[in-house]
Parts: sequence; C-alpha cells; structure tokens
Amino acid sequence: MMLGAESLEDLSLGAAFLATGGGGDPYVSYLATREVLEDRGPTELISIDDLDDDAYVVTIGAVGAPSVSLELLPSVDDPEKALLAFEKHVGRTVDAIVSFEIGGGNSLIPLAAASARGVPVVDGDGMGRALPEAQMMTYAIAGVSPTPALALDYAGNVAIFETDSTATYERHIRAMAGAMGGMITAVEHPMTGRQLKHSIVRDTISFSIELGRVLRENRGNAQRIADPLRQAFASSLYGEMFHLYTGKIVDYASSIVGGYDVGQATIESFDRDAPPLTIDIKNEYLVARIGDQVVGSVPDLITVLDYETATPINAERLRYGQRVTVYGIGCPEFYRRPNALAVVEPRCFGFDIDFVPIEELSTHHLDIEG
Amino acid sequence: MMLGAESLEDLSLGAAFLATGGGGDPYVSYLATREVLEDRGPTELISIDDLDDDAYVVTIGAVGAPSVSLELLPSVDDPEKALLAFEKHVGRTVDAIVSFEIGGGNSLIPLAAASARGVPVVDGDGMGRALPEAQMMTYAIAGVSPTPALALDYAGNVAIFETDSTATYERHIRAMAGAMGGMITAVEHPMTGRQLKHSIVRDTISFSIELGRVLRENRGNAQRIADPLRQAFASSLYGEMFHLYTGKIVDYASSIVGGYDVGQATIESFDRDAPPLTIDIKNEYLVARIGDQVVGSVPDLITVLDYETATPINAERLRYGQRVTVYGIGCPEFYRRPNALAVVEPRCFGFDIDFVPIEELSTHHLDIEG
Repeated sequence: MMLGAESLEDLSLGAAFLATGGGGDPYVSYLATREVLEDRGPTELISIDDLDDDAYVVTIGAVGAPSVSLELLPSVDDPEKALLAFEKHVGRTVDAIVSFEIGGGNSLIPLAAASARGVPVVDGDGMGRALPEAQMMTYAIAGVSPTPALALDYAGNVAIFETDSTATYERHIRAMAGAMGGMITAVEHPMTGRQLKHSIVRDTISFSIELGRVLRENRGNAQRIADPLRQAFASSLYGEMFHLYTGKIVDYASSIVGGYDVGQATIESFDRDAPPLTIDIKNEYLVARIGDQVVGSVPDLITVLDYETATPINAERLRYGQRVTVYGIGCPEFYRRPNALAVVEPRCFGFDIDFVPIEELSTHHLDIEG
Repeated sequence: MMLGAESLEDLSLGAAFLATGGGGDPYVSYLATREVLEDRGPTELISIDDLDDDAYVVTIGAVGAPSVSLELLPSVDDPEKALLAFEKHVGRTVDAIVSFEIGGGNSLIPLAAASARGVPVVDGDGMGRALPEAQMMTYAIAGVSPTPALALDYAGNVAIFETDSTATYERHIRAMAGAMGGMITAVEHPMTGRQLKHSIVRDTISFSIELGRVLRENRGNAQRIADPLRQAFASSLYGEMFHLYTGKIVDYASSIVGGYDVGQATIESFDRDAPPLTIDIKNEYLVARIGDQVVGSVPDLITVLDYETATPINAERLRYGQRVTVYGIGCPEFYRRPNALAVVEPRCFGFDIDFVPIEELSTHHLDIEG
C-alpha cells in the first residue's frame, strides 16, 4: 500500500487522538512530511507479515519536551539527514523503518525518512500510543538493544550513543535533548525483522488513518462522535472506549521538568454539582480522577477532545476555558502483560496507585453530555 | 625519550602545580597510569619538532567535575578502551596522542592510552595549565574542530559527538558528563601534525617532570622552595613567578554547579592585621584578591601549596585550617594573544574585571613569609 501526502491529514488526526496528550504537536510534522512526500513520492506501507526476518529495521522519531516543538519547528530534511548519518555510522543501509510511537508527530517522521530514502515503513509502532520514556517502548520491553542510536539537532550536530541498557540510553539521550535545544531527531533500536515481529504493536498506522477519517467525518459533533469512535476501536487491537467526562478546563499548570512537560489539568462539569475531573500529565495524560476516584490510568489511553469540533487536544495546547470531552480506551494487550506493566504502570510515573484496567473501573458510565 | 613508570611521580607532582587547583586529583590517575606503564611498557615522548606534518593526532583526557574523581575512580582500562572505540568510529588508527591539559590527572591519561596502544605522546598540551572549558584550549583557539569526539563512561557506555562548533561541543559533552556519572574519558580534537604545531603549548610534559623534581627535592621547605621554583620557570615558556600570600584557610565553600566545582576560598595571614586573600574557583583557581585588589587572574596561573610540605593542593582538597602558600605565574605567551584572551580572560568566567598581566600588578611583592 502506498501512502501519499493525501493520507497524512487523517493519519495526523488519528495520531493526535492516540497521542493521549503527548507526542508533540502533529501539525508542523504534518506540514514537513507532506512536503517530503510531495517532493520525493509516496511511502510504501508494508504489513509486518510481509517483512523479511533478516531485514535491518530502525526506528526514527523526535525526542524532547513536546512544548518545545511549538517554537523549535521540525525541519523537512532532518529525518533524512538523521537516517543518512546513522547509516554512515553503522556502515550499512536500512531495509525498513518503523515508528517508535504512533502518537503525535512521531507517526509522521518515519514516513518522511522512508520517502526520502526510498525504503518502506512497517505498519505499526512501539507504543500504540505516546509514552515519555524509551524503556516503555515495546521494543525495549521485548529486549531489543536501544543502540547504536543517533541524535541530530536543528543545526545538524550529531551525537551517537552506544549502551546495552535502555535506562542508560534514556538518561543519555534525554541529557542530549536538553543540550541540543530541547528537541532532536533520534534513530534508535536497530533490529531484525524477526525481533520486530515479536515486539511491534501492529497495524497502528492504518488504524490511525481510519481513526482520523472517523474524526474528520464527524468533526463538529461531540455528541454523535462517541458511537463511530467506539465502533472503530471495537474492530482494533485496542480495548473498549469509555466516555470519562465532559466539561470546561478551569485550571491548567505545566512546567518543563527534566526535559518533560509536567502538569495537571482540572476540568469542571457544566453541571456545577458534579465533582471535577483532574488529569495528571507527564508529556502524556497519565491518570484521570473524578474527585478521589481514578477513572483511567496509564497504560490505558486518556484522550481530550475539543467539545465543539471533536479535535484531539495535546497537553501543551490545553488552555483555561476550553470545553472538552475526555475519553478513556483500553490499551493494546501487549501493555497488559506483567513485564510491560512493570515499566508503564502508574507507579513508574510516581503515582501511588495500582493499575486497574479501565473496563474494571466502575465510574466510567457517565453519559456523553457529562 | 622513553617515559617509564618511574617518571610519573615527578610528572604528577609538577602537573598538580600547573593544574592551578583543577584538573582532577592526580593521585588516582597516577596509580592507574603506573599500572598501565608497568604492564605494557614505557611511553615514547616525542618533541613536536619530530612529529610528521601529516600525522593523525588526537587528544585524550577526563572531562567532568574534579570533585567527582575523588569517589568515581578512573579505571586502568578506560584510556585504551576510549581510544579503541574512537579508532573504530573514525575507521583508522591514530599516529600520536597529545594531552589537552597538562594540569592534573589529564597529564597522565595520554601516557596510559599511548602505552596501551603503542603510539608516542607529543611533549606539550593544549592549555599549559588546567582550564574548565573546551573552547579555552589552544587547539580550539587555533581553529581545530573538536569532533569527531568520543566519551566513554565508567560502565563502558559510549557517546560520539559531531559538530564544528567548540561551544556546542562543550555544551554537549558537559551534558553527557553529567548523564554519565559526572566524570568521563574523552577523545577529541583529532588533527594533523601540522595543526598541532600551530597550536600546542610545547614541552609541558618534560617541564612538568622538571617542576615535579624541584618540588620533590625541596619538599618540606616552603621558605626555600621559592627560589628553585623561580629558576625553573625562568628557563620555561611560562612567565615570572610571584609569591602572592602565605596564611591559613579560614573559609572555603564549594558546590557542584552545572558540572563544575564552583566556590571561594579565604586565606588569612598569620599576621592578623593584613587583609585576607580570597580565591574564586571554577574547577580552577581563577582570581586572587587581597582585599579588593586583584593580585592574579586567569589565564595567569594561581597555585596553592601546602605551607609545610610545598605540595600543590587541588581546589577539591582545600580544607579549613590548612596553612598554605599561594603563588602566581605568568601564563604561556599563547594565552596573552588577543584571540586567546577573548575566551579565557576573567570576563569569560563572569568576573567584571580586565585581565592585567601578573607582572604588571603592583601588589605581588610580599615576602615569602607573608
């Protein structure tokens, strides 16, 4: 299947939904990727089933604080430049590219790199959403070494990393992202087709395009969008979708801490007697509570939509007074496994709560009107 | 000339003097280098005049906060491992090694790398002393690109840097030094013999051994050491040596800020009526004042000796109550040039004072007894 520039709008819309507030603003990545695909031609999207076991695959994407991407815009050339520098370092060309996170701009960067280098992109990613740290990636959880890895900054400066420990790699690239201006293009987790087959969250690019189509076709109708969204998720590898809350943002605080956007949003129901919903943020929406009651938590997905347009809103775009609808969705089965939960459960983010699957939480049966 | 393990004690003593308080504690580097030279054989020390113009030379040394080296000890194998990883990255072997700073442990690390790899060390260095930042190196001032450069941490993890800007390189490696545990081994500033001839502070290794011999032979005699030290400097490429102060440390404060040891020491004269001497520190002793009067400042050298033993004392070893003698020495001529002063004058360290050559300052003619 060939993905041309015309697919990118739906893809970036769906990816913004799956980004759960993080992943960077997809709009600038959309513009940059559209330019590459118009210039260099469509990207071939292949199923993981069609990838050779011995293929040499790398992941590529942006690393840093999403809020920085609002000001330090991604360059059209960076994905290709990063990939070329990586290939020079390892002394071989790559056979295919895969996204490390479908959420946000990182769903698009692999397409630009693949188009520019004339290699296919594998349909799927390493998160099924957006998550803030490298060791939370399915590839890392499945034991793929993060390096050799390469970071390219806005000025063409390069850093290359070699370590077998994903936690060490995460510390190193995070430090370099800070030193390199807050946002970098990273090529990492080189692996074989066989390794990718055991670790990919499959088909998330095509699902993201489908999700984007649903959002686009139902734009401007927050009341009616729940049903088509639920249907889309029902035929996906994600779990069930639940309406968590509808209301107005009355408080939003955020700061950049250690290279992350860290903050909290409070949403008040239009019905003033209902308790507010709070969302804790570390790049992504991680834990949603109504009063003291957790109604959704990482690794399950929490997504905030504009109430009027049904457009997903990234954490760094939250503003006082926005009217929003919040959904929760069960994560792909990979992240419900004990070895995955060990690195993505709420405690990994400093929250003193156990992970309870969203479908087992009792408070999600509020009506769409909140 | 072959340098064996027996030369290292004088070398490290002289290098501690030239370190002007920084450069890391030379004792652990001394032990590690001695072990390498005993195991792998002496290092060949060659004059810059005997280096081929087309030789491929690299610098090697430790980068980080000197105080960290008191706890995170340098490994015997790190210089060789770092050099091997560097050679693998650039795809060629190096012909010779040169120190980037003669001050402190970084005078010894090149000898260990050279002995292990069987290549010569060029007599000289890139500072003539110790200085805290890469852009202050003579190589950088002369326009040598800092990269490709490589950092190796205590656990064998590697980071490689590529940038043409020394200021950028300094920011990147400083961030990585922090992420890699506070102290790393760096291979950097690859250059030709021709480039080195235009930038080296020559003969500082052999001078450091000579200086160490003078210190060793006059150990335990702070009164009498001034004359033989002055004679040694008089026949070197350094300027004149002046006695600045003798007294007792009554205040010393230091903290690690941005990967540097930053602090201030106050020394009170044994004669209580004299105003105290204060020394401002950023890894190195940078500015010495008696009262408000500057009596010595970077790039000229300020060195603190134990009053009883004439042993140089590094900044991270300063303690309340130590009795010390402070000397100032004119820096090598290279650092008096405008393009060098532009990156090493006191203003580059945040001090709002002009650089005045130490021999033009009027307050240095105190007697050795202070």
